[in-house]
Amino acid sequence: MSQPSDRYLVISSDCHAGLPGAKYRDWVDPEYREMFDVAFPMQQSEVERLTRKFMPDEFKAAWRRDTGDGWHGAWDSAERNRQLDGDGIAGEVIFPDGVNDGNLPPFGAGLTLPPEVPSDLIWAGAKAHNRWIAGFCQEEPKRRAGMAVIPMAHDPVRAVEEIRWARANGLRGVFIGPLWGKHEPYHSPVYEPVWSVCEELDMPINIHGGAAPTEDYGDHPGNIGIFITEVAWWSTRPAWFLIWSGVFERHPKLKFVITELGASWVPELKALMDQRFEANHFTAKLAPYRTELTMKPSEYFDRNIWVGASVTSRVDVEMRHKIGVDRMMWGSDFPHPEGAWPYTRKFMAESFHDIPDADVRQMLGLTAAKVYGFDVEALAPLVARIGPRAEDLSLPAAERHVAAAR
Amino acid sequence: MSQPSDRYLVISSDCHAGLPGAKYRDWVDPEYREMFDVAFPMQQSEVERLTRKFMPDEFKAAWRRDTGDGWHGAWDSAERNRQLDGDGIAGEVIFPDGVNDGNLPPFGAGLTLPPEVPSDLIWAGAKAHNRWIAGFCQEEPKRRAGMAVIPMAHDPVRAVEEIRWARANGLRGVFIGPLWGKHEPYHSPVYEPVWSVCEELDMPINIHGGAAPTEDYGDHPGNIGIFITEVAWWSTRPAWFLIWSGVFERHPKLKFVITELGASWVPELKALMDQRFEANHFTAKLAPYRTELTMKPSEYFDRNIWVGASVTSRVDVEMRHKIGVDRMMWGSDFPHPEGAWPYTRKFMAESFHDIPDADVRQMLGLTAAKVYGFDVEALAPLVARIGPRAEDLSLPAAERHVAAAR
Repeated sequence: MSQPSDRYLVISSDCHAGLPGAKYRDWVDPEYREMFDVAFPMQQSEVERLTRKFMPDEFKAAWRRDTGDGWHGAWDSAERNRQLDGDGIAGEVIFPDGVNDGNLPPFGAGLTLPPEVPSDLIWAGAKAHNRWIAGFCQEEPKRRAGMAVIPMAHDPVRAVEEIRWARANGLRGVFIGPLWGKHEPYHSPVYEPVWSVCEELDMPINIHGGAAPTEDYGDHPGNIGIFITEVAWWSTRPAWFLIWSGVFERHPKLKFVITELGASWVPELKALMDQRFEANHFTAKLAPYRTELTMKPSEYFDRNIWVGASVTSRVDVEMRHKIGVDRMMWGSDFPHPEGAWPYTRKFMAESFHDIPDADVRQMLGLTAAKVYGFDVEALAPLVARIGPRAEDLSLPAAERHVAAAR
Repeated sequence: MSQPSDRYLVISSDCHAGLPGAKYRDWVDPEYREMFDVAFPMQQSEVERLTRKFMPDEFKAAWRRDTGDGWHGAWDSAERNRQLDGDGIAGEVIFPDGVNDGNLPPFGAGLTLPPEVPSDLIWAGAKAHNRWIAGFCQEEPKRRAGMAVIPMAHDPVRAVEEIRWARANGLRGVFIGPLWGKHEPYHSPVYEPVWSVCEELDMPINIHGGAAPTEDYGDHPGNIGIFITEVAWWSTRPAWFLIWSGVFERHPKLKFVITELGASWVPELKALMDQRFEANHFTAKLAPYRTELTMKPSEYFDRNIWVGASVTSRVDVEMRHKIGVDRMMWGSDFPHPEGAWPYTRKFMAESFHDIPDADVRQMLGLTAAKVYGFDVEALAPLVARIGPRAEDLSLPAAERHVAAAR
């Protein structure tokens, strides 16, 4: 390991990038550009309406004041490098939705499964983003691992083609949404070829928190509280669909990552599934349902599933042995306002200040390097220049920032 | 307190009763009997199909062999008393679906929200069950607290009328299902009159585990594993809808009970909601969403919500101080095969053998007495005759039964 001993390799398992919405036009296949011109203003005004509703203007203004033009790093390569350097981040896993405000991929790209958008348009939007992000990552291939947007519920066959295209063009994983309602559930046989190609090409599959069936809520001021109480559950749900249906049994090398939801839910979920797996008084009356599995559910979890524990909280770090030190990956969520940027060292200090060095290295970078295939040797010179030092993580308590637990 | 000191008052917070399906005909309003004659054979064959699919014949046969005709206690008053006496249970809270196999109320009564059944029929079925269970409870008014089936999502106005009828006819709480999809969510203003009448009449509202949107699953052998992993979540979900939308703020005396799902999920849920409630880095960007609340979410939980921790597991008992000793109620789930009957003392011994006496009394009976309004004095002679003794709860380890944790 050529990491300089006084610097940490930091790979953010959770960053975002995206063009200002209108600029995606050039990346859309020509036959969809006319439709883009119709749809874009509608999409934009809907995003603005929602942003105004859920993120107060005063908060946004204050935050922009604090962070200057740094958020242009969502699409500006040089600005992005400056901001990541400043935060001490050498490598990053890049999801869409760059600035949490107006740069969704065209037609929504299926990110939140708006049910009324035709599948063709959703795919056109996903491909536009994938083309752009592939080029953006090729500008910094050692640092940037882009995730391809794969709205596979809208066409699993096309998903396989797009994943092959993504891999050939340097993208390093796939991003799928949580799922409910009218699409085929993720343990449906129609997705088997998708799992196969991801396993074959070593493309980790990522669920990233943020979507829940808010159409269940009606319109109520308490909805935000409901949403932030249950949103993590919706993104973890695919894990038990895949485990129980034997997807990881059939695809032992498949990597599945659940990001931006903390990690404190992991021990309880593993214990719950194992308890349900064991023959006991509660399950005795049930028909055979363990037929797809040769191991306990928690063993699939510990082999095939990782957690992108963005802005890893102190609570999560203290639970690391129950969660798995090698399952948890730190992330900055750049450039989202609920993330660590531009105060990454202050958040790290709060969570890691007294944790053994080997564990810190694992959670800050080494696990992500393994999951997403970063070349640690190639990043070493950059780490030597920008990586945080042990003293950065030893800030006095008064100078640290506290990340939201859970 | 006139309880004899060497006997425990046991109130099962979770028992079931229901007529053999065909016998419900006489309890259905005359104008729906013709429809009953058409629907009943279909419902029966569907229940039989599902029972065969999810509960193997061999299990059922063995279980019937072990328990004899005791399951006739689902509708036979004398048999029921014999079985409850044998288990040492003085009082009971009674839900529908007596034998987990073929005695659902007519037309399903909305218990699992089959979306295609017209609301009028669902209500006709609920009313038929309520009439029958009211009479059944009046045979043993000190022992039996019947829950009225209230498919309120199908008509909140009718729900208010039916709750008044139920109270006037001796029923002691209402049973509602979990909710998803096309109906108004439980924090909708349309249900305000329902919460008001339940608060006014001191009728606890009960969600009882058992339903999940299995229509999301497709057809897969792993589905049972998925179902038993997430079913508890679906029945706990209404709790955070009601808390965040201020239902308990507006109805401070409303009682809400979540039954047959264990209790180990309580501390994490309370901590999660309180974390979401606090102003912190994660929630800073969000529009105001705490406007309905004057207390922390956990404080509403600790005031308004109870947990029917059926066949309370050792894990739940060990967590009792985090859950709330006065929040957890033991239950036998009679006459379901996953319940404690007819081995109640053996299950109790496993979970309670070394727990302080005051805590045991709280969890086995005193909390349920308070929540559902049992007359403890009136039950004392029965307790003196049938209640378990401290020595019953001190069975050697080899003779105890282990309840499923979580």
